[in-house]
Amino acid sequence: MSDLQKSLSHARTHQAEYLEQYKELLAFPTIGADPAYREDIVRAAGWIAADMQRIGLTNCQVLPSEGNPLVYGEWLEAGSDQPTVLVYAHYDVQPVDPLDLWVSPPFEPTIREGNLYARGSIDDKSGVHVNLKAVESMLAATGRLPVNMKFLFEGEEESGSPNMAPWLEAHKDLLQADILIVSDGSNDNETPLIMVSARGIVSAEVRLHGPVKDLHSGSYGGVVHNPAHLAARIIAAFHDENGRIRIPGFYDNIRPLTDTELAQMKAVDDWTMTTALRETGLTHFWGPAEIPFQVRQTAQPTCEVNGMKSGYQGEGEKTIIPAEASFKVTMRTVADQDPDDLAEKFTRFVHSFDCPTIKIDCQINSAKWPFQGLTEGPVLEALQKAYETTYGRRGLLIRAGGSVPIIGDLSRILGMPLTSLSCGNGDNGHSPNEFIRIKYYHLGIETVIHFLYNLAGNALQQL
Amino acid sequence: MSDLQKSLSHARTHQAEYLEQYKELLAFPTIGADPAYREDIVRAAGWIAADMQRIGLTNCQVLPSEGNPLVYGEWLEAGSDQPTVLVYAHYDVQPVDPLDLWVSPPFEPTIREGNLYARGSIDDKSGVHVNLKAVESMLAATGRLPVNMKFLFEGEEESGSPNMAPWLEAHKDLLQADILIVSDGSNDNETPLIMVSARGIVSAEVRLHGPVKDLHSGSYGGVVHNPAHLAARIIAAFHDENGRIRIPGFYDNIRPLTDTELAQMKAVDDWTMTTALRETGLTHFWGPAEIPFQVRQTAQPTCEVNGMKSGYQGEGEKTIIPAEASFKVTMRTVADQDPDDLAEKFTRFVHSFDCPTIKIDCQINSAKWPFQGLTEGPVLEALQKAYETTYGRRGLLIRAGGSVPIIGDLSRILGMPLTSLSCGNGDNGHSPNEFIRIKYYHLGIETVIHFLYNLAGNALQQL
Repeated sequence: MSDLQKSLSHARTHQAEYLEQYKELLAFPTIGADPAYREDIVRAAGWIAADMQRIGLTNCQVLPSEGNPLVYGEWLEAGSDQPTVLVYAHYDVQPVDPLDLWVSPPFEPTIREGNLYARGSIDDKSGVHVNLKAVESMLAATGRLPVNMKFLFEGEEESGSPNMAPWLEAHKDLLQADILIVSDGSNDNETPLIMVSARGIVSAEVRLHGPVKDLHSGSYGGVVHNPAHLAARIIAAFHDENGRIRIPGFYDNIRPLTDTELAQMKAVDDWTMTTALRETGLTHFWGPAEIPFQVRQTAQPTCEVNGMKSGYQGEGEKTIIPAEASFKVTMRTVADQDPDDLAEKFTRFVHSFDCPTIKIDCQINSAKWPFQGLTEGPVLEALQKAYETTYGRRGLLIRAGGSVPIIGDLSRILGMPLTSLSCGNGDNGHSPNEFIRIKYYHLGIETVIHFLYNLAGNALQQL
Repeated sequence: MSDLQKSLSHARTHQAEYLEQYKELLAFPTIGADPAYREDIVRAAGWIAADMQRIGLTNCQVLPSEGNPLVYGEWLEAGSDQPTVLVYAHYDVQPVDPLDLWVSPPFEPTIREGNLYARGSIDDKSGVHVNLKAVESMLAATGRLPVNMKFLFEGEEESGSPNMAPWLEAHKDLLQADILIVSDGSNDNETPLIMVSARGIVSAEVRLHGPVKDLHSGSYGGVVHNPAHLAARIIAAFHDENGRIRIPGFYDNIRPLTDTELAQMKAVDDWTMTTALRETGLTHFWGPAEIPFQVRQTAQPTCEVNGMKSGYQGEGEKTIIPAEASFKVTMRTVADQDPDDLAEKFTRFVHSFDCPTIKIDCQINSAKWPFQGLTEGPVLEALQKAYETTYGRRGLLIRAGGSVPIIGDLSRILGMPLTSLSCGNGDNGHSPNEFIRIKYYHLGIETVIHFLYNLAGNALQQL
C-alpha cells in the first residue's frame, strides 16, 4: 500500500473523530471584528496551535499582531528537493446578526440533512481544519509529508486584515516558501472552483464646493457655476463613448494575458454572460465590444461611480443652484498595476478640472493590490489532478471581478506564486444558517492529500 | 386748487382713518393655501367689495373661481379718450409659521417704531388697499378719476394661482383694458423698484433605470452600464465650456433687447455683481463673458440642475454600480419663449441619449411663461414722474432672474402691456414679523394719485 493509500485510508477511518474535532473548533465564537470576543479568539488560536503540536507539526506558535493573533506551524523534513508549501486560511468569522434567523445557534454546530450548520463552517474554519486533518492523516499513517509545509492562520480577515501588511513584512523570513496555497471560499456544489485572480481596488471621494449656500436658481442661474454641472463634467470624462477609460495612463502596467488565459476566459464567456443577464435583469451589456466579456469583467481595470449627490433630492422641486456636489468612485485594478500610482493618476485627472469658480477636493480612501494566481503549469496541474480524483472533474478557473486585498498583500509582500484551494462546499458564508456539506468536508481532506502527493511528484525547479 | 391737489389733500387729511381701515383688512387671516381659513377668505373678499362699493366704484362683485374668490370693481366714466387701467393685486397671504417668532400676533396689526406689523401688511394687502385709498381720495375730493379703471384682486397668489389661467381666459372681456398695473412686492427703503421682467420656468425630472438592483462594482464593473455615468453624460452635455446651452433650439424666440434695455442693464451691472459677490461668497462668476452680467442673470435662458442622486451617499464606501440615477432641472425662459416648446426641446435632447443599456424617463413638472413689462414709453414715464415727486427719485428698473408665473399668465392671456407698481416699503413678506413702513403706506397712496393724473396727460394712442 502506497503512502498515498495509507493516508487516504487513515482519513477515511477517522472521519467521525475529525468531524467531532471540527465541531469543537466551530464552537469558539471567533467574531474577529467584535472586541467582546477577544478572549474567545485567543482561546481558539491556542486550541489550533495545540492541535498542530499534537499531530506532529513543529515550531507551533500563537504570534501576536497589532490586532488578533495569528497561528503558525511547520513541517520541513521532506528534503530540500521537495517544494515548501505555505498554506493560508483564517479562523475568524463574520458576525452572526440577525440572530433570530438562525435555525440552530451559530456556535452550537448542528447536523441537519448531511450539512453541518455553524458560523464559520464554510468561511473559513474549513480552510484551517481540512488542511490540518489532511496533514494529520499523512503524518499518522506514514510518519511524514510528501512536501515541506508551513501554515499561517489569520484572525482578522473578516475585518479587512487591517494589520496584516506590516505583519507580513516583519515575518517574511519565517514565511518563505515556494508556493502559496490560499484556502478560503467555497466550491460550487459539484464543481471545484479555483480563483486565479481578483482585481485590486482604489476608492476615492470627490467633493465640489461652489457658493457658500444653496442659491435661488432664478436669481443666479446664468452667472454662478453649478457644482452639479462640474461633477457631471468630471464623471462624464472618465469614459469615452465605448466605455474606455480616458484617465491618462489608466491602462499602463497591465500584465498581458497569455494565450492560455485568454482561451480560459473565452471558454467561460457564455456561461458568465448568462449568469450576468439573470443577475442584472439587463438585455444588453456595455463596454468595448472587441474585448471579450470575461476579460472586461475581470481582467481590465474599471472606474465606477458608486454614488453621487447634489442639492435637493426630495419630492417635487426646489429651485436651487446647489452649494456642493460630491461623488464616490471605486476603481478596480489588475496585475501588475500599482494602486498608489493609479490613485495619483485619478487625482491628477480630477484636478485637471480645477477652475476659479468651484473648489475641488479629491480624497483617496484606500488603494489595494490585485492578485494574479497561477493559470497553468505543474502546481495547477497537481491541483486539477487531485480534483479529478476526488470530485471526478477538473476545477473551473474563476477570475473575480471584485477584490480580495489580503491575497494581493500575501502575494506581493511574500513574493511567491499562488493558487487557491477551497476546502469545502457550503453556503451562507456571511448570512444566517452558514453550513458546510459534510460529504465535501471529508472530500476536501482527500483532495489536499492527493494535491500534496501530486505536488511532490514535480521537481522543485518546475515550480 | 387742481383736481390733483384736492385729491392729495384729501389723502393727507384722512391718513389716520385710512390706516384704521387698513388694520381692519389686515385682521382677516386670509391664508389662502389653508382650507381652514376659507371662511375668512370669503369674509375678506366681501369686505373689500363692500369698501369698493362705498367709495364709488361700480359693478363691484365677488367672483367665484375653482379656488378662492376674486374681487372685481370698476370706474369707467373718464371718457373714451382716456386709457383704461387694470390694477392687479392679491389679498391672500402666506402662512404664519413659525408662530412663536412673531413679536405681536400676525393678525393683530400692531404699530412699533413707525412700522405696522401684520401678516400681509406688505405682501400684498398693501397692493389692494393703497390703490383703493388713492381712488377713494380722488373720488371723494373731485367726484371723478382721471382715467378709466378696473380692479382685480386675487385670493390664491401665494398658492401659485393654480386656477387663474382658465379663469382669466373666461373673463377676458370683463378685464379688457389698455394697460395692466401689477401692484405686488416692496420697494427698497428709499428707492422705488419697478420690476420690468421675470423669467419663465420649466421644471423637469430625469430618471435613469439600469440593472434591477445595485450590483457589486467589482463583479460587474466593465460590463454593466452605470446609470450615474449616463446621468453625468447628459448633464455635462447641457452646456459647452463657456456655459452656453447646447440643447438644440434653446435660444430660439428670444425677443432682442432694445438699446434702451441693454443700457439699463449695463447701468446696474456693477451693483448687481457686487450684491452677487456678497451673497454667494464667490470670487469668480461663470457664463459667456461677452454677455453682460445682468443680461446673463435675467435676460438669457438657463438650464440648472437643482439636485442629482445615485447610489450610496453615506459615510465611507459601498462598492456598487447603482441601479438608478436621477436629477432635477429647472430652466428659466425669457420673452418670447414658449415654455411648452422648450420643455419639448429638453425632452428630445435628453432622449437623444437613449440606449439599449439604460432606460431614460424624462418628466416635465411645470412650464410657466416669462413676462416682459414696459422698459420705456409714456406709461413708464408717468410712473417715474410720480416717484420723482413722492420719493424724490426715479424708480430702479429691476429684472428678476426668478419667475412670477401669475404675471406671465396675466400678460399673455389678457394681451396688454404692463408695468409693476409696488405700493409700499416693508420686509419679511414670507417670514415672521412682516411689516410695512407707515410713512411709505401713505406715500404709496400719493404715488398712485400722481401716476394716474400723469397717465391722463398722455393721449391713449401713445400707449
